[in-house]
Amino acid sequence: MSETPTGNAPHGTHDPVAQEDAGGVLALARDLIRCPSVTPDDGCAIDVLATVLRQMGFAVTPLTFGEGHARTPNLFARLGTGHPHVCFAGHTDVVPVGDAAWRSDPFGAQVHDGLLYGRGACDMKGGIAAFVAAVRCYLARHDGRVPGSISLLITGDEEGPATNGTVRVLEWMEAQGQIPDFCVVGEPTNPQQMGEVIKIGRRGSLNATITVTGVQGHVAYPHRADNPVHRLLAILHELTAAPLDTGSEWFEPSSLQVTSIDVGNTATNVIPATACARLNIRFNDLHTGADLSGWIRTVCARHAPGADVHIRISGESFLTQPTAGVDALRDAVAGVTGHVPRLDTGGGTSDARFISRYCPVAEFGLVGASMHKADEHVPVADLTQLARIYDMFLERLMA
Amino acid sequence: MSETPTGNAPHGTHDPVAQEDAGGVLALARDLIRCPSVTPDDGCAIDVLATVLRQMGFAVTPLTFGEGHARTPNLFARLGTGHPHVCFAGHTDVVPVGDAAWRSDPFGAQVHDGLLYGRGACDMKGGIAAFVAAVRCYLARHDGRVPGSISLLITGDEEGPATNGTVRVLEWMEAQGQIPDFCVVGEPTNPQQMGEVIKIGRRGSLNATITVTGVQGHVAYPHRADNPVHRLLAILHELTAAPLDTGSEWFEPSSLQVTSIDVGNTATNVIPATACARLNIRFNDLHTGADLSGWIRTVCARHAPGADVHIRISGESFLTQPTAGVDALRDAVAGVTGHVPRLDTGGGTSDARFISRYCPVAEFGLVGASMHKADEHVPVADLTQLARIYDMFLERLMA
Ligand SMILES: [Zn+2]
Ligand SMILES: [Zn+2]
Repeated sequence: MSETPTGNAPHGTHDPVAQEDAGGVLALARDLIRCPSVTPDDGCAIDVLATVLRQMGFAVTPLTFGEGHARTPNLFARLGTGHPHVCFAGHTDVVPVGDAAWRSDPFGAQVHDGLLYGRGACDMKGGIAAFVAAVRCYLARHDGRVPGSISLLITGDEEGPATNGTVRVLEWMEAQGQIPDFCVVGEPTNPQQMGEVIKIGRRGSLNATITVTGVQGHVAYPHRADNPVHRLLAILHELTAAPLDTGSEWFEPSSLQVTSIDVGNTATNVIPATACARLNIRFNDLHTGADLSGWIRTVCARHAPGADVHIRISGESFLTQPTAGVDALRDAVAGVTGHVPRLDTGGGTSDARFISRYCPVAEFGLVGASMHKADEHVPVADLTQLARIYDMFLERLMA
Repeated sequence: MSETPTGNAPHGTHDPVAQEDAGGVLALARDLIRCPSVTPDDGCAIDVLATVLRQMGFAVTPLTFGEGHARTPNLFARLGTGHPHVCFAGHTDVVPVGDAAWRSDPFGAQVHDGLLYGRGACDMKGGIAAFVAAVRCYLARHDGRVPGSISLLITGDEEGPATNGTVRVLEWMEAQGQIPDFCVVGEPTNPQQMGEVIKIGRRGSLNATITVTGVQGHVAYPHRADNPVHRLLAILHELTAAPLDTGSEWFEPSSLQVTSIDVGNTATNVIPATACARLNIRFNDLHTGADLSGWIRTVCARHAPGADVHIRISGESFLTQPTAGVDALRDAVAGVTGHVPRLDTGGGTSDARFISRYCPVAEFGLVGASMHKADEHVPVADLTQLARIYDMFLERLMA
């Protein structure tokens, strides 16, 4: 499309990077990467962003929740007060550098051969920079005005416990009457190249630890013992005997994975006293965490009445039915990249699970192949494309 | 019966212990316990015994096999050269004292309230002392003569690897034409009181270690991983789904016990790369170690083609059909204790598994309730009874 932002980008400078830097996406991405904001540290990332947003006319509210180690800086910023209210959500915190060696400083934000390197480049400081650049381009084309309103929900704790981040900001937003009409989360959703995947939901996740206590004894006298391993095997066999489902309209099948079994008995002639298993379920919209917990407890009770069962539901499944917001995002992705993205609900969890409780939410961002690894990077061209996609999305939704 | 040895025991001493000490069973048991013969050390036990047997007229052959740490002292002693040749078999080595506190010196051989305390009191220095005392009593009644012959097969390594013990002595005996017609092993066979159980066989024992290697991955993407825990669960479910058998004429059912499963994965969101299980089978005469090994390997290959399967058969099952020797032993036990003993094949393994390859073998000894524990002990009255039982058994078999 002819009105895409790069068509309006400033030309004529001598810096080949700046020449391509539609809406300043690369410059902001580099500024953010240079803040060493490894969870729970903020570096200066939230401040850098607040300053930029204020300069653009956003009403910026820093929101720090929690105390001591749990103290988490967040930010809510809104431009305009009308509807539609479109929110861009993301996180400035990054995972640690890791043990593997990097080819350049993880917080140096250097560009080599068209690739921007740094922790957070794709997950997701690059995405946040694209939010801002898109708004700049949109405003540049509309005399600095937006018909509805645009907000940013930014947390400094998504990679950590996420207790005092997005969850708390959303509570505050609800109390302030600032819940948006649609939200885009800028996590890296594309496996290999731009335009592949928009996420419109996520599976739920549940972790269970099952500890069975029996009666220790000699293997030659099994009738005097009660082998907890055999009881645990019966439980795990029943839990894994059949698939949980065959998938639903928008979800792949739910999956139960036994991640560990541990007994630690080194004596070959002894029946051990206890046996412990851990499992994870990624579940679709055919289940709830409560239903699955009940099922696990029932199976455990049948085979090992005294079993100790600990269950933690880290997120329920959610789905945003493909309607106006999702359509606008899909059209923007297709228009800029030339690929019609797949609407997907696979993969891990993100803060979209919290946002989904308040408003429709979809996720689209950069290519995630290098996220959480050494030499995390993103092509500068992808950053530019992402800024154009968000800009075109705003154009469609605000029209 | 009136001709039982205690009827002939010397009376009139002032020592209440010696007064009851038919054939010197208590004195010899104490001498043996005072030798700290924790495997692989011999203390002085074999020497003490050799000296006593030589004094009684036995032809004693010390037999030391193995070198360095594996060096094991053993002894074969025979009185007479004719048939029937009855052999008494046992071990002088004992298990360690252990961590729990003893009420008296484990190698002090003290008598409190009619109980002889010490490591090896019931397993099985008391049994060896009863062999010797029985022969003394028998000879005392028969002018020092035996119609057939009586031998002792004593090893200093039954509780350890048992490589250079009974197995090697039997090879030597065969080469020398000294294989007996019947053998009695003096292991403690009675669970609670004298006269309960004669063992006429033992189950076989097999240990297997199964290691399954899969492909590590994230739980959210199970199709990209290959969960070795699930493959291992399928193997173990098939191995434990049905009983191996329902028992046979002289054996209780075979038993498969999974003794450990170990993965060691602490990450709740990661499918691990490997999973390992260990199991033990105690099997009766309906199986062989080879058949069971083949079955385990077939089941593993079906569910995890690359699984690493290590199997060690520590003994095949064996059975001595209840014939003359067993009848004589049962009659002797019933005659002395007033209880008709059960003929049994349950429990753990002993060196009888090796002897059974050469000649009929049965096991009868003291009460094993305190064996391998702190404060191992045996009633002095039981020692006397056991000497009388072995004596009566000789009387019947030599008649
Ligand atoms: Zn992220
Ligand atoms: Zn023993």
